[in-house]
Amino acid sequence: MDIKKLIDEVEQINSGLYQKDFLLTWEKSESALRRVLQVADILREMRMQNISPKVFDSGLAVSIFRDNSTRTRFSYASAANLLGLEVQDMDEQKSQIAHGETVRETANMISFLTDFIGIRDDMFLGEGNKYMREVGEALDDGFAKGVLPVRPGIVNLQCDMDHPTQAMADLLHLKHEFGSLENLRGKKLVMSWAYSPSYGKPLSVPQGIIGLMSRFGMDITLAYPEGYELIPEIVDIAKHNARNSGGNFKIVNSMKDAVQGADIVYPKSWAPFHIMQERTKLLKAGDKQGLDALEQTCLAENAKYKDWEYNENMQKLTKDKDALYMHCLPADISGVSCKEGEVAGKTFEQYRIKTYHEAGFKPYIIAAMMFTNRFEYPVQVLKSILERANKRVLY
Amino acid sequence: MDIKKLIDEVEQINSGLYQKDFLLTWEKSESALRRVLQVADILREMRMQNISPKVFDSGLAVSIFRDNSTRTRFSYASAANLLGLEVQDMDEQKSQIAHGETVRETANMISFLTDFIGIRDDMFLGEGNKYMREVGEALDDGFAKGVLPVRPGIVNLQCDMDHPTQAMADLLHLKHEFGSLENLRGKKLVMSWAYSPSYGKPLSVPQGIIGLMSRFGMDITLAYPEGYELIPEIVDIAKHNARNSGGNFKIVNSMKDAVQGADIVYPKSWAPFHIMQERTKLLKAGDKQGLDALEQTCLAENAKYKDWEYNENMQKLTKDKDALYMHCLPADISGVSCKEGEVAGKTFEQYRIKTYHEAGFKPYIIAAMMFTNRFEYPVQVLKSILERANKRVLY
Amino acid sequence: MDIKKLIDEVEQINSGLYQKDFLLTWEKSESALRRVLQVADILREMRMQNISPKVFDSGLAVSIFRDNSTRTRFSYASAANLLGLEVQDMDEQKSQIAHGETVRETANMISFLTDFIGIRDDMFLGEGNKYMREVGEALDDGFAKGVLPVRPGIVNLQCDMDHPTQAMADLLHLKHEFGSLENLRGKKLVMSWAYSPSYGKPLSVPQGIIGLMSRFGMDITLAYPEGYELIPEIVDIAKHNARNSGGNFKIVNSMKDAVQGADIVYPKSWAPFHIMQERTKLLKAGDKQGLDALEQTCLAENAKYKDWEYNENMQKLTKDKDALYMHCLPADISGVSCKEGEVAGKTFEQYRIKTYHEAGFKPYIIAAMMFTNRFEYPVQVLKSILERANKRVLY
Repeated sequence: MDIKKLIDEVEQINSGLYQKDFLLTWEKSESALRRVLQVADILREMRMQNISPKVFDSGLAVSIFRDNSTRTRFSYASAANLLGLEVQDMDEQKSQIAHGETVRETANMISFLTDFIGIRDDMFLGEGNKYMREVGEALDDGFAKGVLPVRPGIVNLQCDMDHPTQAMADLLHLKHEFGSLENLRGKKLVMSWAYSPSYGKPLSVPQGIIGLMSRFGMDITLAYPEGYELIPEIVDIAKHNARNSGGNFKIVNSMKDAVQGADIVYPKSWAPFHIMQERTKLLKAGDKQGLDALEQTCLAENAKYKDWEYNENMQKLTKDKDALYMHCLPADISGVSCKEGEVAGKTFEQYRIKTYHEAGFKPYIIAAMMFTNRFEYPVQVLKSILERANKRVLY
Repeated sequence: MDIKKLIDEVEQINSGLYQKDFLLTWEKSESALRRVLQVADILREMRMQNISPKVFDSGLAVSIFRDNSTRTRFSYASAANLLGLEVQDMDEQKSQIAHGETVRETANMISFLTDFIGIRDDMFLGEGNKYMREVGEALDDGFAKGVLPVRPGIVNLQCDMDHPTQAMADLLHLKHEFGSLENLRGKKLVMSWAYSPSYGKPLSVPQGIIGLMSRFGMDITLAYPEGYELIPEIVDIAKHNARNSGGNFKIVNSMKDAVQGADIVYPKSWAPFHIMQERTKLLKAGDKQGLDALEQTCLAENAKYKDWEYNENMQKLTKDKDALYMHCLPADISGVSCKEGEVAGKTFEQYRIKTYHEAGFKPYIIAAMMFTNRFEYPVQVLKSILERANKRVLY
Repeated sequence: MDIKKLIDEVEQINSGLYQKDFLLTWEKSESALRRVLQVADILREMRMQNISPKVFDSGLAVSIFRDNSTRTRFSYASAANLLGLEVQDMDEQKSQIAHGETVRETANMISFLTDFIGIRDDMFLGEGNKYMREVGEALDDGFAKGVLPVRPGIVNLQCDMDHPTQAMADLLHLKHEFGSLENLRGKKLVMSWAYSPSYGKPLSVPQGIIGLMSRFGMDITLAYPEGYELIPEIVDIAKHNARNSGGNFKIVNSMKDAVQGADIVYPKSWAPFHIMQERTKLLKAGDKQGLDALEQTCLAENAKYKDWEYNENMQKLTKDKDALYMHCLPADISGVSCKEGEVAGKTFEQYRIKTYHEAGFKPYIIAAMMFTNRFEYPVQVLKSILERANKRVLY
């Protein structure tokens, strides 16, 4: 692809991304989202054509993972490294935070030579996103008072509300699969609950998907068994977005009904909203027994819906029997990673490589979030990278 | 600030820093200390003016943390990264050291392409500094015998005796607050014990402060409740330094008496010297019961001195009721990180941002220690960095 | 040394190394092995002469350590850093692999911007090397299907069969000690079992040594007490290699007999093959009791052979009483790291620095494996590095 042409397509507008944290996609304008996708594509194309987009000669990209991660951890590390930053993990176990140190202090202490802080905090409902904002306020304060030479940008690597790097990578995947964002208008996307033998999966992926995909005129169906609601405020946002973008949004309680004629299906398990609320209370109280009891109840409840598996029979009902299957991975694959799960082995295998492509956009989405946060005029910077033409690998 | 001017101010003397480990400030000449401060200021100013002082194209900066750390860990990582080195943490849990490997061997094994080793080892009295010297001797041997292409420099990131990166960052903070090192002459600095609900805090910070600040003609008062002595040899060094530099050094047993007319106060908890000796014995013996008993005794002893809190009443007694409050952080802040602690919440808040500024000098102090260890003629190297004028961030 | 001359000595042949994983030395042609040694020497010489061979402007070198490591961990990090890659450790504890994620998936997920994956997996007989191949197939698939922009190379950092970075570093050490590979023809090398108070040491080092050294016309003696057999197939490979290269290979059951007139001795403990098989079964079954019982039996069995210590008496029997002593380190040194072990304290001390030199080749061997995997025409790339003449340290 012609990188120069891609750069020329980037609108020279004020996207509102400059020096703003990327915490929730629904806080960003549509043009901001388009810009992140465009910059991601450009950085990806540069990497493929052996042009190094390194813009930092030094600097740290701090990561704070309050939950396990593979994909996002490596995506963040890759993005930082591509731009020239070194990842420094803030391992709360090895730090002095246990001393009762305050967030406002720690945020500054790790940021003297830091350009970005990536945070995953998705365990406690009502907390993850709040924590990121607390960190942000502390950084604002530190920067305003001359403690920090730059205000490090925050990248939300998954919270209780949204998983914006995932949702944006998913959107970029759709853009590539369907040719353009415009081609997504009117396409039917089904975000469906699916059965999993595990428990307590965060809500951030389904919420992120309906919150973002509803911005582009798509026909969204959210499907789940009764009781498996998402956070109501976020469902309202999705409804509002759909109306505004000329799309549609509806909720149904049957996977079979949902997938009829679907262009895109995203079958994925999650825990019901009210269970996550209860779980948050128990986690905070450190009530191990209560948590075990809750887990048993939930697994029993889940087990009623084993027929919420995406498989050949479901697939047959979709558009041309070939809806694009999506997943944030790892999926619970029946007969592969569990006995019965979210998706049949045969069906997953059919779309497996596509899910890998989907995942492959995440490093570039994160790099684009960093890039647009950092540069007021990203177009100029991209042009100068292209002119400079440093090679990523010498050969 | 004019960087060229700052560089011109650096004396072209033999500071004795070249290829010498930085283990104790009192082993360094006054001109060496001045030079580290100057180079730190220059590197800091370069970073602020978007000039990259990267002098290594590759190389490792190993870190060995035998105790928790946030500030120092990030400071070391930042310093290494600024100069172009990659931090590689030596996690003794994941290594083969448990096999009974010797220090002289490990020191060489991790150093084949290593430029610096930063070590924190502050748990055992009589051990941390000794361990650093053992590592140093092993490196000397390896270098002399052609095992190592360069002799990696050692940076003391806190030991049982001194915390030189902290004390030097504190001194640089004072230089900025008071305008120059010369302006510190005659200023009254109080290093005072303060109450903490925790136990076993190392002695290295108070020792580092009295050992260093006594070099610059200051009027030092060390204050603690009877029984909370520091290592006697180090107190002797401070006395000697004070005499030599035309300053003063005295010990009192009342915080109230101590802070009268003070220009600078540094209220911080520590464990009594003899307790640390006993604790070291118990730790070595792995005597869990003995340690628990000792902790109880100590906490009970500590609790007698809850009035050693730095607060409004204390502050009133200081020079213009506004002595500069210092702390290495995190502080035990009454009503914030604990019920009753080293400093009143309101008082801490008043100087909070200043303590952040204080902490912010540490990365540059470490970078300056590395820089002056590595280059025989740092002035020339700094000049060539300035002429080269590589940008840290491309824009 | 004249680097230009070293480069000119590298044959311009198709070595078969380009884009091939380095998993077992016996899968590589002799010319391939020679090339790796030559490139390692050139990269080492460049580093010594302050020429930076950085060929990557960004990119990750992932490491997966399923067993403890110090030397190899730092060697891999050093090699990656020297060439411009950033190490990102894949800590399986902090990842989502526990979810039942498949190898083929994880391999791709960590590789979107990755150039190399280094793997240590030496705990389970019949598994480590197999796992590396599984990862390799997944990467082939991902690359073929456009998921990965490049096919990351795999470096075997020790498996159940071979320890190629160790054996190749050992061979490079021998090349330096004896002047050339040609000078190794006819030299007697003894790979001998030795007593250790520990249990379950992998077979990969002795297997790696006999598998590799038998390629160069050496006279190899493998010595162990009856019952301490290695994997039979690998012993067959060594026999075959010896015949092919005009060397010799024999097995004896006495260290004393073995070391007669030896030029080189490599005394090192390992667990018997059949014990490792049994241990693998128990480990897989999670049979803690069985493992403890097996350990007791083995230690008792080991204890019968305490006279398998390499010491002054053994040394006397070697060529000129001065056979080159080798070890992969850390050694079990009698009176130093254990009461009774593989080697007498005095004897080890005599050759200690030489073993450090031996270890010092490993970073360059790994870098050379990466370099020859990545570049089809390494000679041209080396020449352009030399012409470019970037300094590693600015001064």
